[in-house]
Order: sequence, then C-alpha cells, then structure tokens
Amino acid sequence: MIENTRDMLGRTGLIPVDEALRILLHHLQHHTPETETIPLAEALDRVLAAPVLSPEDLPAHARSTMDGFAVRATDTFGTSESMPGYLQITGEVRMGEPPKGEVKGGSCFRIATGGLLPDGADAVIMLEHTVPVDDTLIEVVKGLGSGSNIIGKGEDIAKGALALPAGRLLRPQDLGLLAGLGISEVQVTRTVRVGIISTGDEIIPFSETPRAGKIRDINAIALSGLIRRAHARPVDYGIVSDRKEIFMPVLEQAVRENDIVLFSGGSSVGMRDLGEQAITDLGPPGILVHGVALKPGKPVIIGLSNEVPVFGLPGHPVSAMVCFDLFVRPAIDRLSGLSTDLLPEASISARLDRNMNSAAGRRDLIRVQLSRQDDIWTAEPILGKSGSISTLSRAHGYFIIPESSQGVSQGATITVYLYL
Amino acid sequence: MIENTRDMLGRTGLIPVDEALRILLHHLQHHTPETETIPLAEALDRVLAAPVLSPEDLPAHARSTMDGFAVRATDTFGTSESMPGYLQITGEVRMGEPPKGEVKGGSCFRIATGGLLPDGADAVIMLEHTVPVDDTLIEVVKGLGSGSNIIGKGEDIAKGALALPAGRLLRPQDLGLLAGLGISEVQVTRTVRVGIISTGDEIIPFSETPRAGKIRDINAIALSGLIRRAHARPVDYGIVSDRKEIFMPVLEQAVRENDIVLFSGGSSVGMRDLGEQAITDLGPPGILVHGVALKPGKPVIIGLSNEVPVFGLPGHPVSAMVCFDLFVRPAIDRLSGLSTDLLPEASISARLDRNMNSAAGRRDLIRVQLSRQDDIWTAEPILGKSGSISTLSRAHGYFIIPESSQGVSQGATITVYLYL
Repeated sequence: MIENTRDMLGRTGLIPVDEALRILLHHLQHHTPETETIPLAEALDRVLAAPVLSPEDLPAHARSTMDGFAVRATDTFGTSESMPGYLQITGEVRMGEPPKGEVKGGSCFRIATGGLLPDGADAVIMLEHTVPVDDTLIEVVKGLGSGSNIIGKGEDIAKGALALPAGRLLRPQDLGLLAGLGISEVQVTRTVRVGIISTGDEIIPFSETPRAGKIRDINAIALSGLIRRAHARPVDYGIVSDRKEIFMPVLEQAVRENDIVLFSGGSSVGMRDLGEQAITDLGPPGILVHGVALKPGKPVIIGLSNEVPVFGLPGHPVSAMVCFDLFVRPAIDRLSGLSTDLLPEASISARLDRNMNSAAGRRDLIRVQLSRQDDIWTAEPILGKSGSISTLSRAHGYFIIPESSQGVSQGATITVYLYL
Repeated sequence: MIENTRDMLGRTGLIPVDEALRILLHHLQHHTPETETIPLAEALDRVLAAPVLSPEDLPAHARSTMDGFAVRATDTFGTSESMPGYLQITGEVRMGEPPKGEVKGGSCFRIATGGLLPDGADAVIMLEHTVPVDDTLIEVVKGLGSGSNIIGKGEDIAKGALALPAGRLLRPQDLGLLAGLGISEVQVTRTVRVGIISTGDEIIPFSETPRAGKIRDINAIALSGLIRRAHARPVDYGIVSDRKEIFMPVLEQAVRENDIVLFSGGSSVGMRDLGEQAITDLGPPGILVHGVALKPGKPVIIGLSNEVPVFGLPGHPVSAMVCFDLFVRPAIDRLSGLSTDLLPEASISARLDRNMNSAAGRRDLIRVQLSRQDDIWTAEPILGKSGSISTLSRAHGYFIIPESSQGVSQGATITVYLYL
C-alpha cells in the first residue's frame, strides 16, 4: 500500500491515514498522564485516572422498589383473588427515617418506593395486589416470594465493586453515580495543554484589515475551539514570522510549555521546508510522518520532540481542521488517558446527491450539507474553490471515500459523521 | 390521544410527550433573548443573536487557487502537447506582498496558491500543464479560459452576503469563518441561567454519609452537568426542606434570579402535591403539564411563572435526566435563541438483543449498552431495579418505543441516540 501511494503530481512517499495514525500512537503508547485530585463538582468532562471502586454497599439497607406493604412472604403464600389472606397494618415506614418496630406474622407496614424494609419483613406486596378493608386491615390477593419488590443490601453495587473504569470521560450521569456513592473527590488526568503557533509573514491578526497579499489568521481561533471541544486547553503563541531564527525559539518554548504543539502556516514550499527543518532541529525522534495520502490535508507533518507531538498543519483552514480530527484529536485523547475503545462516533445515514470521484490509494473526506425529506437525509457535497472560506462553516458533517475506492455514486447510502 | 392515555394504574390524564412539549414551547414562543456583545475569542458555543453579514468582499482581490503561472488566457489558446506555446517569465508574485508590475502579452509571472493575481493576467496555468525551458521561459501545453484557477474578488463571499444566520451555535469552524471576515466581536444571546433546587427531607449532600433512610443528592450534580452541556449556566440552590414555608421562599428567589428553574425531590405523593401547589402559588400561568405518558419520567410537572419555566422533575436520577433531555433542554434552546431546525441528532443503528415490551399510548425510552462485532452494533437494554443507581452511567444511549407501539422484537434494527 505505502509503496503505491502517489500524490497528484505522481510523487510517491505519501503514507496512508491509518498507517500515519498508527505510527503516531505507537510512539505515544508508553505515555503515562500526570494526575490530580479535584472536587467532583469540577470534574465534568475530565478523564478518570484510576478505576473507581464503590466504597460501600448500595443500598446500605434493603429498600422497597414499589409503593405497597412490607410483609413476610410466607404470609402471602396460597392467596388469590378467590382466596384472599388478611394482614393487620401495624406500622408505616416514613421516608427519610429508619423503620420503627418489627413486622410480625399476620401483620404488615405501609411502605413507599425507596422506603427502608423494616425488620421482620422480607418482601413488599404492591398496592394493586391488595384490597383495603379498613384503615388497619388489608386483603392480600396474590402470593409472592421472599425478596419480591425489594432491592437488597449491596444489590445495586457492592462494596469494592467497579463503579467506573480508568479512562472514562466523566459525563453528567457519571458524576451522578459517583455522588450516589459518596465520592466527593476524584483523581483525574491533568488537562492536556496544546500550544498553537500561527506562522507565515503573510498572516495578520483577524482583527486587522489586510493589505494586499496579507490574509487573516483563521486557524488559531478555529483550532482553539477544536482543542476546547476535545477537553484540552489551548495556549496561543500568536503569529510568528516564518524566518527560522524567529520561529525556532517560539517553537522550542511552546514544546517546553505544552503536551502537544501545533503550528500552521502557508502551504508554500518554503513554509513546508521550514516546518520539516524545525521539527528535525527540535531533536529526536524528529519527523514521524511527512505527507499523508489524504484529501484535504495531504501536506501535514507529524513529529515528536522527546515525548511532545508536534504537528505542522496545512495552512488552509479546512485542511487544518481535517488533520486535527484525524491526528491531533487522537493524540490528545491518548495523552489525556481517555479510553475511546467503545465510543461510537456520532453519525447518520444519508443519500449522496451526486457522483463523487476520488483517487485510489488516497482517503478523501468530503464535507456535506444535510437536508431531510420525510425520514430520508440527503447529503450534498460542499464544493468550493481551494482557499474558499465561505465553505468553512456550511458543513453538517463529512463522509469518507476510502483508499480502496475510486468514488461513490449518486444515490449511494453513505455514513455522515456529524460536526456537532 | 390525550383522552385515551392511561398510566399503569389505569388513571387517565397523562399527556403524550409531543403534546407536553408543544404546550411548553407554545408558551415560550414570544420570548426574545437578551443579547450581549463579546469578543470572538470567547464566543465558542454561544448563540448568534443576529445574522452576520460579510463586511467586505472576500477575497478582496483575485487570487490564484493553484501553484503555477499567472497568464493572459488568450496567450494559451490553441496550445497542446504537440503544439506548445512559449511564455517569458517576467516576474514573480511573492506571498504576502502585492504583485509588482504587469503581465503583458507573451509573458507570465510565477504564482503560488493564494498569490494575488497581477495586473494584466486573467488566469493561472497549473505547473503541471507547463514544461520549463529555462529559468526565464516555459512551454505551455494546454489552453485555458479566462478565470481559470483563480478565485475572483468577492467570489468567496460578497460584501453584504449572509455569512451566518441568527440562532447559530458557534462551532470552531464558525469562529474561523468570522475571523476570516475580520469580525472580532459578535452579538450573542445571554447565557441561559438554570436554577436547581434539591428538595426532600431525606436528601443529604453527597459528601455526607447517610443515616438510615437518608439518600445522597445525585440529581443536583447530574443536572448541573446536563445544563453545562446545553451551554447554559447552572445555579445551585442546595438542598431545601420540602416543608412549604421553607421551600417556597427559595423557589421564589430562584424564579427571580434565573431563566429556568428545576426542582427535584422524592417521588412521594406529598412531594408531588407540594410541587404542584408551589408552582400554582408562584402565580400565572401556573401548571402547564402534570404527568406525561412517558417511562421513565411520568410524574414530571411543567409550569410557568410569568415567563420562567419551572420544572418539577422526578426524584429518580434516570427519570430526572430523561425529563431534562425531553423538556428542559428544548426550553433552554428556545430561551437561548438557538435554531435547532436542521441539526440531526447523534445516533447510530443497532440490533436489539432481546424483546422489549411497552404499553400502547406511552413513550418508552430504553437505555442501552452498545457493543460492536465487525460493523454491526448490538444494543443491550439496561435493566435494573427501580432506584438502582449503578445503571446510571452504563448506557451509551437510548432508543424510543413510540406511543403507537406495544414493543420491539429481538433482532429488530433500532435507532440509538447517543449519550456523548
């Protein structure tokens, strides 16, 4: 595969996307994230550094799972609508209080869902399987076994059982579970810091009006947003000249101060040479990947300085964002200790509204706009001239034409991965 | 439909989910969000309050979209590999600088992708359609039309054209587009504030160890997380007694200080009565919905005090979270001015691994765990006793059994909406 990949000018040496990612992640496999302990209330979207075991039995006492009466199950054996049994109501379980007294043979306590099972009782009969006779007596019209309609001590989660695995991104429901276990602090991995350098003498801050030939910096703010969405922290080093004596010290500083560094610049040959030279000069291992069989995003450079991944992203914003999704995001996930094995990607099925061609041996990511008629989604590829920024935000998602394919036909069903 | 809905005890009066949501949103339809102007760098995940029109033509000058030579198209007419034309290289467009000089007949300028088209030229011939003769002369082996391989002034986006519509949630790529247009401040809607009250005398802070009958507050932290994920701001009023003289002043304060108020408490009849009474006492319009044909989540109360939606959520965390997704989230979106028309929900198709029954006239949301073999996702319903909190975080998503259905068979293909 690798030998056969050629870019559009017929040059060889481009690496397939999966191979580039494998090389990158292989170099990060022995990374151990630093950890910190933080209050649970601040832990949303952080990554668990260690498994959480339940510190106690839940529930701590058997509870009712129904509104009804706490009984001795043996007292209900053999009862039916035609042969009801009778039980004296001798008590009531009040919410938030331990039950007072004991359920003796022939008697029962009123109990609501969540109420603690009183001593003596071993089951709860549902309200609808009883008939009130008066305030102190019920008819029981159904027999039930011991343990019916209760949740036993430790049955929800036993002391020492795994509550959440290491590597879990803490979602709202995970915080709820930990709160339920009384865990008010969690050990999480340190937030990954990602340095961003915009480079190129033609790049100006977006707040300024460009003179002829200058262009505004789009990548820094777009990449910052993607980094935040990846639950990492962007650190912006501003716009730096692409003259090596100016660029190199800033790059070195960014590598010292961050876990990952991105630079993006013009797509000129000079800029590409600078990027390659700069990563080499940072020291070993140096360049891992230079050029990927990918459209858009072909000229991406992936390197490593000690343990810090350094990405030279294409200057074009769409290309830079595609390379972020394919390479930078997985690196952030790996360095944050996130376990991504089981997470399905957000996607929908749609019908492609025109033929799209691709080159064999290259992966194409085609951005699309979606529209729905009845329950059918239609995907319209977003085509725009290279450098067009108006297309930047029109996409609802993208689909993939894999290396093995030379195109997808109009009307084909495709999987569209969503930009949320 | 409404007349025929019955809960499991045969009681009528439950409202279908869609009807409950329609009633709620109908009452919010005239709401106009407050707005504020903020720096673009802080605008990620905020909602645009007004359409953004392009303040300028982009590009401001015609640019090349290829690496090659800026030419007069007429000079290439009729050329081919067998009948090449010849052009003198009389200049070069340098990145970041306005072109110097003019392309005259029979001549051309070197130009890179993104370079400004020099005066006199009206097209760019790609490098690969030329053959270098020496440093000053090229062979042209393909004819091209005027405008080829350039993007004209204002062709990307014209001055005054719509760049982004009002109601857009600002994603990273949207910030990139706005930066490209030189827009450094945006008018967004004010972040929606959502007050949370946990109520019930049996509820204790999650950091404490419950005595018999007490349970830890799970809902406040889980709801806070959901509110943050909905790009709103949670305001926690802590745990408040369910005695009306204590509860009511806190509820009133929360209604004064927030755009939406949630309270959640025990599922006891007393608590339900208090919730209903409290919303009524807040003043008109009062209760909009009390009880929905939904599992889980049936006992939800939806009310309105002036313009502030007030939700009485079920005490059980899973039920509370389901009601959040179905009712609170759409209210947040509406009050924030978010346009949700075109956004597909994140979902995947999966095969259900067992039969699931439901009651006609009721909507069931069944949480599932997903697993993948080859390219097929299998969904396993998460079943747990009522009140079980260990199930809280096991779900990857949920599927819906609609009101019109009494169940879904094993092996059926279902749409699983993802918890991300």
